[in-house]
Amino acid sequence: MNSAPLSGLYAPSLSLLTDLYQVTMAYGYWQQGMQDREAVFHLYFRRPPFEGGYAVCAGLAYAADWLENLRFSEDDLAYLGGLKSSKGAAMFPQEFLNYLRDLKFTCDVDAIAEGTVVFANEPLIRVQGPLLQAQLVETALLTLVNFQTLVATKAARIREAAGADTVLEFGLRRAQGFDGGLSASRAAYLGGVDATSNVLAGQRFNIPVKGTHAHSWVMAFDDEVEAFTAYAKAFPDDSVFLVDTYDTLEGVRHAIKVARQMRANGHELGGIRLDSGDLAYLSREARALLNEAGFENVRIVASNDLEENLITSLKLQGAKIDTWGIGTQLVTAYDQPALGGVYKMAALRKPNDSGWDFTIKLSEQLAKTSIPGILQVRRYENEKGQPRADMLYNIAEPLPDQLTLIDPSDYTRRRPVRAGAAFRELLQPVFRRGQRVQELPTLEESRTRAQREVQSLDPSIRRFLNPHVYPVGLEETLNTFRTNLILEKRPLRPA
Amino acid sequence: MNSAPLSGLYAPSLSLLTDLYQVTMAYGYWQQGMQDREAVFHLYFRRPPFEGGYAVCAGLAYAADWLENLRFSEDDLAYLGGLKSSKGAAMFPQEFLNYLRDLKFTCDVDAIAEGTVVFANEPLIRVQGPLLQAQLVETALLTLVNFQTLVATKAARIREAAGADTVLEFGLRRAQGFDGGLSASRAAYLGGVDATSNVLAGQRFNIPVKGTHAHSWVMAFDDEVEAFTAYAKAFPDDSVFLVDTYDTLEGVRHAIKVARQMRANGHELGGIRLDSGDLAYLSREARALLNEAGFENVRIVASNDLEENLITSLKLQGAKIDTWGIGTQLVTAYDQPALGGVYKMAALRKPNDSGWDFTIKLSEQLAKTSIPGILQVRRYENEKGQPRADMLYNIAEPLPDQLTLIDPSDYTRRRPVRAGAAFRELLQPVFRRGQRVQELPTLEESRTRAQREVQSLDPSIRRFLNPHVYPVGLEETLNTFRTNLILEKRPLRPA
Repeated sequence: MNSAPLSGLYAPSLSLLTDLYQVTMAYGYWQQGMQDREAVFHLYFRRPPFEGGYAVCAGLAYAADWLENLRFSEDDLAYLGGLKSSKGAAMFPQEFLNYLRDLKFTCDVDAIAEGTVVFANEPLIRVQGPLLQAQLVETALLTLVNFQTLVATKAARIREAAGADTVLEFGLRRAQGFDGGLSASRAAYLGGVDATSNVLAGQRFNIPVKGTHAHSWVMAFDDEVEAFTAYAKAFPDDSVFLVDTYDTLEGVRHAIKVARQMRANGHELGGIRLDSGDLAYLSREARALLNEAGFENVRIVASNDLEENLITSLKLQGAKIDTWGIGTQLVTAYDQPALGGVYKMAALRKPNDSGWDFTIKLSEQLAKTSIPGILQVRRYENEKGQPRADMLYNIAEPLPDQLTLIDPSDYTRRRPVRAGAAFRELLQPVFRRGQRVQELPTLEESRTRAQREVQSLDPSIRRFLNPHVYPVGLEETLNTFRTNLILEKRPLRPA
Repeated sequence: MNSAPLSGLYAPSLSLLTDLYQVTMAYGYWQQGMQDREAVFHLYFRRPPFEGGYAVCAGLAYAADWLENLRFSEDDLAYLGGLKSSKGAAMFPQEFLNYLRDLKFTCDVDAIAEGTVVFANEPLIRVQGPLLQAQLVETALLTLVNFQTLVATKAARIREAAGADTVLEFGLRRAQGFDGGLSASRAAYLGGVDATSNVLAGQRFNIPVKGTHAHSWVMAFDDEVEAFTAYAKAFPDDSVFLVDTYDTLEGVRHAIKVARQMRANGHELGGIRLDSGDLAYLSREARALLNEAGFENVRIVASNDLEENLITSLKLQGAKIDTWGIGTQLVTAYDQPALGGVYKMAALRKPNDSGWDFTIKLSEQLAKTSIPGILQVRRYENEKGQPRADMLYNIAEPLPDQLTLIDPSDYTRRRPVRAGAAFRELLQPVFRRGQRVQELPTLEESRTRAQREVQSLDPSIRRFLNPHVYPVGLEETLNTFRTNLILEKRPLRPA
């Protein structure tokens, strides 16, 4: 490997995909002899993205793959060994590098399945194991889960707006780096789009791929009729003509002319694509021209910075669009390009192994104060399998007979749990002592789950504007424990 | 390779990093016998990002690396061979797949060096060669150049706001996929930040890495003094204590207590970090406490969703911050997470090889209509080397003696070029007939160039609010040619 490559396209090891402070803390814990103290961390977000009412969990397959491949190569160790303190000494001693060389991931990992709908404060992943390791994996887990959850959620919203129409993702050219594109295509499919233009994503994830031609195709011929005719020759049963290179409605007339030739040869034009201008007006005009010419089944594909709100607006305007092509807005989650997921320590075994210390990070806002304990998420469902409320509770403590959920940011909002209410536990084992114990679902299965789960939510939670807040509560004894811990940790200032 | 891997973390070949329509058009051109017609494409953007006055070019090293590795593996061909038409036939015939197997990249590529300041409509990359190939590379070039140019530009703006202060990038956990993080760290360094927390970026690009500890470090000890003391033991000369786990100003007092112990042992505390709350107020209070205790040299590091406007505001409020930690806002370019770069065909050799057809893509807006020709960007500079104006011209046509620049979106804005004015040609050869002809600059060299180039711009162009528009003109004969081509291609509609 080149010591100073110009591009990072073909990185052989991703174990250094982390913030330096994870390594400095690892060294510190090792030096203190604390490396094997058992710790518990939770990965969660504090607010659903896009001011929406829910998120669709995604990225676990990447995270599990990264954890399984976590080991420091000799290149990695040589790099760390070469880092210097400000005084010019080695940042890390050789004994510590030797420790890293032998390090094997031995944590337990529980996670919520990809495609599950999730809400604020719910651990998507719980890592339990040696403090040094559980801390070390923070950055990569956040990077891989934050982004895919964000895009899967955006895709679910776009699916909601598009209804039963076909939705295509073709944002690769505007994605944030090649993996910003590749993992976005995966998450978008998981969240509900039907196909992608991204061939690499098609190859690696078995996602259906779609695509026809660019403006340059038209420009490479003397005129549109010639260009469309040539394209139809190559793809007689799968042509979609891009009609706006010079003038959209002229383009539609040229497409109709070629569609007639195709029909005479026993083929049907698949569709036309509008990529600019007033899509409401142009799609209605194009539909009228196509229908008048006897091409009622030619589909109209539209693209041009579309997202869920524009789709909704175009539908309200009576646009005649059958297929929505979504690019930049989806793959970059343009209106909120990051999910603020965090990874917080919530429990640490006492030094003499005599039980747990539950840990908390305070904040000026109660909503940003972390939740201590070894948490599980219990989802209560009604007889139709629709989620009614989620309860976070500490599995290290016994549950009382009468369960009460308390809103973590408003302790006056309480709801008792009906005796015998049906529920499922969302966090399920993925790793035990560093070994995979669960075959993860395929992408197709996760996609099916996402569609089922989103549809099972009440429409008031799915709507885009001011959605209803789905109830997520702390089990009462956990809430009381958290309150006492906050009061204990926060300095009392006289008024 | 698994046929349906769950994660794309370790993709062995990136040649399918493209939109399907690039492959369908390739097949169409091949079928028409047009694959080797010589074509010219330009990659450019239509507006600088962030409503700013300039962009910093980046990503060429990635793009060149991708082009150099462009070949279809047997896995790639097997995947393409398995794609089906809607009638269930193979989408691509075997002869075409054989053609792809033997395909070698033989284009000429000229590009503007990374770190150069660039403006709307200027080709950052020009690809000239066989139509099929020049088209095929569109998506990857856009993906790799759009994003890094965006982040390098954001970094240059943050550098502008921070002045001589230290700027650290630590956005990996909120980045868009692992390469969204890795390539963002590279571009941010190129654009002017001083260091990154991203260890993989440090390893692969020799970027200085920085980082201290998280809140969880503090939570893992009985109290802050114990936590800081342990961290100082591990990094006696490079400690920055995060002081806001429980209460920021209490945290500062605890840091001072430990700093005194350190000083007694011959070490100095490096800094404290504020990660929440009112940074203007807290930094002033922290500075006062530190100074009072004799720790004038302990630096104050601040983080929490910072970007150029917040930095400017905090400075105006008299915040006492020495080092700015920038995460999400930089690596995702939060306020504009995509640069709308495009790749347009501008010339195509006539079939009988008798010269060029110059090609154009029309739009309702003149500013979105493409520029025909084989373009070069000439930058005129004053005696101090400061850019004065840029001229786009067609190298396939002779230049007149008297040069005049015409604003591409307002033909009444003209400026003549002074005889003998100094200039440089920005597009320089990178590939000739598919072979690299230029050793690209190192990242460090590109970073130096970026800082010099941004500084050489007039402050009115660098400012954040309503910047002055740097003059970029079409050379007059090119402008006349473009106007005539638009009139020829646009249908005349009676009013």
